[in-house]
Amino acid sequence: MIKVGIVGGTGYTGVELLRLLAQHPEVEIEAITSRSESGVGVSELYPNLRGHYDDLVFSPPDPDRLGKCDAVFFATPHGVAHALAAELLERGTRVIDLSADFRLRDAEEWAHWYGQPHGAPALLEQAVYGLPETNREQIREARLIAVPGCYPTAVQLGLLPLLESGLIDTDHVIADCKSGVTGAGRGAKVPSLLAEASESMKAYGASGHRHLPEIRQGLSDAAAGPVGLTFVPHLTPMIRGIHATLYGRLTAEPGDLQTLFESRFAGEPFVDVMPMGSHPETRSVKGANLCRIAVHRPGDSDTVVVLAVIDNLVKGASGQAIHNLNLMFGCDETAGLAAPALMP
Amino acid sequence: MIKVGIVGGTGYTGVELLRLLAQHPEVEIEAITSRSESGVGVSELYPNLRGHYDDLVFSPPDPDRLGKCDAVFFATPHGVAHALAAELLERGTRVIDLSADFRLRDAEEWAHWYGQPHGAPALLEQAVYGLPETNREQIREARLIAVPGCYPTAVQLGLLPLLESGLIDTDHVIADCKSGVTGAGRGAKVPSLLAEASESMKAYGASGHRHLPEIRQGLSDAAAGPVGLTFVPHLTPMIRGIHATLYGRLTAEPGDLQTLFESRFAGEPFVDVMPMGSHPETRSVKGANLCRIAVHRPGDSDTVVVLAVIDNLVKGASGQAIHNLNLMFGCDETAGLAAPALMP
Amino acid sequence: MIKVGIVGGTGYTGVELLRLLAQHPEVEIEAITSRSESGVGVSELYPNLRGHYDDLVFSPPDPDRLGKCDAVFFATPHGVAHALAAELLERGTRVIDLSADFRLRDAEEWAHWYGQPHGAPALLEQAVYGLPETNREQIREARLIAVPGCYPTAVQLGLLPLLESGLIDTDHVIADCKSGVTGAGRGAKVPSLLAEASESMKAYGASGHRHLPEIRQGLSDAAAGPVGLTFVPHLTPMIRGIHATLYGRLTAEPGDLQTLFESRFAGEPFVDVMPMGSHPETRSVKGANLCRIAVHRPGDSDTVVVLAVIDNLVKGASGQAIHNLNLMFGCDETAGLAAPALMP
Amino acid sequence: MIKVGIVGGTGYTGVELLRLLAQHPEVEIEAITSRSESGVGVSELYPNLRGHYDDLVFSPPDPDRLGKCDAVFFATPHGVAHALAAELLERGTRVIDLSADFRLRDAEEWAHWYGQPHGAPALLEQAVYGLPETNREQIREARLIAVPGCYPTAVQLGLLPLLESGLIDTDHVIADCKSGVTGAGRGAKVPSLLAEASESMKAYGASGHRHLPEIRQGLSDAAAGPVGLTFVPHLTPMIRGIHATLYGRLTAEPGDLQTLFESRFAGEPFVDVMPMGSHPETRSVKGANLCRIAVHRPGDSDTVVVLAVIDNLVKGASGQAIHNLNLMFGCDETAGLAAPALMP
Repeated sequence: MIKVGIVGGTGYTGVELLRLLAQHPEVEIEAITSRSESGVGVSELYPNLRGHYDDLVFSPPDPDRLGKCDAVFFATPHGVAHALAAELLERGTRVIDLSADFRLRDAEEWAHWYGQPHGAPALLEQAVYGLPETNREQIREARLIAVPGCYPTAVQLGLLPLLESGLIDTDHVIADCKSGVTGAGRGAKVPSLLAEASESMKAYGASGHRHLPEIRQGLSDAAAGPVGLTFVPHLTPMIRGIHATLYGRLTAEPGDLQTLFESRFAGEPFVDVMPMGSHPETRSVKGANLCRIAVHRPGDSDTVVVLAVIDNLVKGASGQAIHNLNLMFGCDETAGLAAPALMP
Repeated sequence: MIKVGIVGGTGYTGVELLRLLAQHPEVEIEAITSRSESGVGVSELYPNLRGHYDDLVFSPPDPDRLGKCDAVFFATPHGVAHALAAELLERGTRVIDLSADFRLRDAEEWAHWYGQPHGAPALLEQAVYGLPETNREQIREARLIAVPGCYPTAVQLGLLPLLESGLIDTDHVIADCKSGVTGAGRGAKVPSLLAEASESMKAYGASGHRHLPEIRQGLSDAAAGPVGLTFVPHLTPMIRGIHATLYGRLTAEPGDLQTLFESRFAGEPFVDVMPMGSHPETRSVKGANLCRIAVHRPGDSDTVVVLAVIDNLVKGASGQAIHNLNLMFGCDETAGLAAPALMP
Repeated sequence: MIKVGIVGGTGYTGVELLRLLAQHPEVEIEAITSRSESGVGVSELYPNLRGHYDDLVFSPPDPDRLGKCDAVFFATPHGVAHALAAELLERGTRVIDLSADFRLRDAEEWAHWYGQPHGAPALLEQAVYGLPETNREQIREARLIAVPGCYPTAVQLGLLPLLESGLIDTDHVIADCKSGVTGAGRGAKVPSLLAEASESMKAYGASGHRHLPEIRQGLSDAAAGPVGLTFVPHLTPMIRGIHATLYGRLTAEPGDLQTLFESRFAGEPFVDVMPMGSHPETRSVKGANLCRIAVHRPGDSDTVVVLAVIDNLVKGASGQAIHNLNLMFGCDETAGLAAPALMP
Repeated sequence: MIKVGIVGGTGYTGVELLRLLAQHPEVEIEAITSRSESGVGVSELYPNLRGHYDDLVFSPPDPDRLGKCDAVFFATPHGVAHALAAELLERGTRVIDLSADFRLRDAEEWAHWYGQPHGAPALLEQAVYGLPETNREQIREARLIAVPGCYPTAVQLGLLPLLESGLIDTDHVIADCKSGVTGAGRGAKVPSLLAEASESMKAYGASGHRHLPEIRQGLSDAAAGPVGLTFVPHLTPMIRGIHATLYGRLTAEPGDLQTLFESRFAGEPFVDVMPMGSHPETRSVKGANLCRIAVHRPGDSDTVVVLAVIDNLVKGASGQAIHNLNLMFGCDETAGLAAPALMP
């Protein structure tokens, strides 16, 4: 069995790790940490887990105990993982960080967007960006994984085939994204109240969002050059799900777009290219580690529209983190991730 | 492997059977039938199943093909199962009926509530009411199972300990129940539209609902005498879940109510008695085959309040049907039913 | 014009007063106070009011300024109104308190339920309980109004006809109530998040809720004797609305229940007795100052079921407060309260 | 008083006309027609109207009776208004059509998108497109109004200032729109069920939607030349509201975009230009005849993003229709349209 620890397990990505790992045949939870909830049983905080982890109690983060784990997931706010990750890596524990702490290769840019100096710039070189569809082999060997953000996962998977094949104008890519409220986390904030967020739709961060540099970095890698991206996220009145609507201007006759997408993701266990002209629904991936994608070319114009949906807590966070674990430890890639989405 | 068929698989209980059976190690789907969707792939109708049943196509009900199954689930409207169930039983196929067709022991009462004569009264004697918490041993040997309705499951589990122990006035039992809209099925009806049913709460059938005689039959068995029940169901703006709020008047000093409930359900894999005074949430069982129960005695009055929650499509339908299958075929009772609820 | 002030205007009942008073022909807002938002424009906090109160800014509570008002609404948490209300009354300003501070006649009982001594027991004698359907004439003359709570309004209106006529057993009255999340206010609490409260149903305070003594006081007045009430509130996944399902046991042949209710509320502008056997929906009163009621007698048993719906922020709070104002100042009772509910 | 009739009053735009007109001081309803609900009282179908139109009953469409009206609203599916509108116009009754029947100037294009020949091409010349912000003076004199569609209203208002001033590339305009489910009407369709549409987000008609030619026509008028538009609508899990996110590529230094928008809509009673960088919420216009707009220029790039929100049933349909009526009959433009939005 693979011994894993979870640091900062009280948030939505933490409980989602527990929900999914309960079905993983090769993993056992060694420790789950929380400063605020220390001493509380996980099933007290998350009654859906009653009967699954009845002896598992939140404990204060203890490097000695975590250092005994084969792998530790960080489900922490940005800035928290830097110091402890370094210490665990020295002890030989592999780190899978769900936060933004190691996603940007440039510590300066990280400091700019997160308003504080980067706490472990020396680790950036060994950090592997945990998007299996682009970095599968590096992930297998990695000691430190930066799990992609939710928006970046949906936007990159939807645009990779077009950018890698040089088919669209890289100066004017548009990503209009809609997210459920769990994307804002479990913090008690007025805008996230049911009375404030339901029965309404709004954009936020339209002038600049922290996921922008991460997305740009990934798209620029794919395009082998800078990509000019306009990214507008929207808060949608639902619990889970991201719908990315992506617009690119064709610079050449693209040939068969459907074949392009299907061949790019052939054999990928967690990317589903739907028939040309489909309209994927976020509920079709609710609770599942999947990205469903459909391509449109409205009126045979020079604009291609890609629709990509994920569950922000699964393929956009905890599920993708477990996919990385499976690759790092030689498990079946789908271990713990095989259940169908919950629909209706 | 156990070969199973599903009759009437296009509704919500049909797709839920497929979602759960995809995780069952000992079952394979031999056939799924639908007159309206014959020839359509299940994953076309239910995209959440893409990648799980890609070769499974709805076919017209064919007794010969269904007769080759070890067990056939009926996920049909009332009145449909009567004739075909008889034919399949003759061929030696076991029948697990999720509809109301075999729930009432009295064919006359069935005819009264369903407005048509009962189509197979001769089968009523061998039909076993599929509530494992009361009929486990008969279920193991049964050829024909009547899976309890969603409201009846929640109400009976919440009241059994009180009625079996003769602690409450059987003349005035009240069940105030709240259900998500999937309880109304997948039919295209105006009252079930999001624009009509969301942001609102209403009672329905307050003067008489078809689940009333089924609940009364079960409660009267437990009380070994007639039970006077007032049952008011409510339509709640959510997809899944039933919350039963049950009121009984104590006729004797009850002793320790918590111990009464815990001992009644000791060892039951799918009933969770929460600590006295808890408030179970329907979301804590979303997608899971569980009934969570909590007991209250407000102000030490003579009124006991029991709160019971289930997912109407799982413990209230498809999950309980699979639990019956597991008992009938000697599988682990939790096979296919072990995943935690989806929360948040 | 009637000069009014609003103390504690940042919460949902405060903004609802502004929304409704914007349509009131005889009222002008003199001041709206808030310590936390002092200096902020009301339309910055509530964009729905942009264009209606563009010059109205939250200011710190100032007795001199408020004392210039003809009437002051308190939309404050419990315990806040006690001292300031006394001061304003001395200055001749009439007070309409939407909080719980003056609802209970017994200062001891108030202290017990609210965990602090009552701050102005001397005022309790002159406080009038602002339920126009029972206290219309006293309200006209009142200097200090205690606006009823949301649950108490729905439960009392639904049970008054039965209790006043002595038709039901007063020892065992049951009120099973369902409320939207605005009932919990605008406070940033985890259980009120969309991600926590939507797609779920749960009871709360089943062992004792602060509205219980208020409801009991009102029902006992109607019954001219003590009433044994079991009250279980539930959190429903919607923004607005209360659905009260009320159960009483008939102690005598009631005659025509429909006529009883219709005659009791004849001429009441804000109570709508629907045809016997109807199922009122909370959305049918969304945004409107109305209580819709329907009566059921299931199976001609000895149990009568009353269904009553209101908008907790209107007939359950701000609308009823304005109804009181209209009575106190001789306006048309429906001034500012005439718009139909928003449906769908 | 202005005598008005409503043809096809059972749908959401019909009931919304009644809700708003109940507050209009100069209008009385002469007749409301419906073939399917003939003989039914409007308050039976829409309980929110109980107490407002208790004597108003749906009747079959009768040209003689409707011909006695000063104005008749058509709230009918496309294709229905053609013949009857012609007859009423001959009788001197003014027609305000909420359907798509007279929105496109080109009968051929109408036939192409609606799959049937246009039923009254001769009327197209006199039909006035009822967008007051562009056609106020023609509306005053009009006999026949084509009320703009919901998406076209939001998209045109958001883009007019940019196109009229020639600031953006007209070849590549993108409108990513999100609509609540009432946009799909009151028809009983499976995809509109709460169980199907809630907790999910999806695009639809991404390869071509019937509102596309209407929007293109309006934008091309503003740009004085053809506009290449990519329009992708999305179904959002809420009842009301449209959020249009509009992307244009600047072709010149735009100067002060905020001033551009504010001056374009100066004096418009129903357009609210919010401060630069704001994020309007659809709930801030729920039930109100308003379009709120905010402009963004992310990272000072050459892409301008405009956010525009409306209530699809009010500014996107019935409210705008009444605005047209007010202009046609010399009423105050805000008559019946002055109430603030319902929030929360």
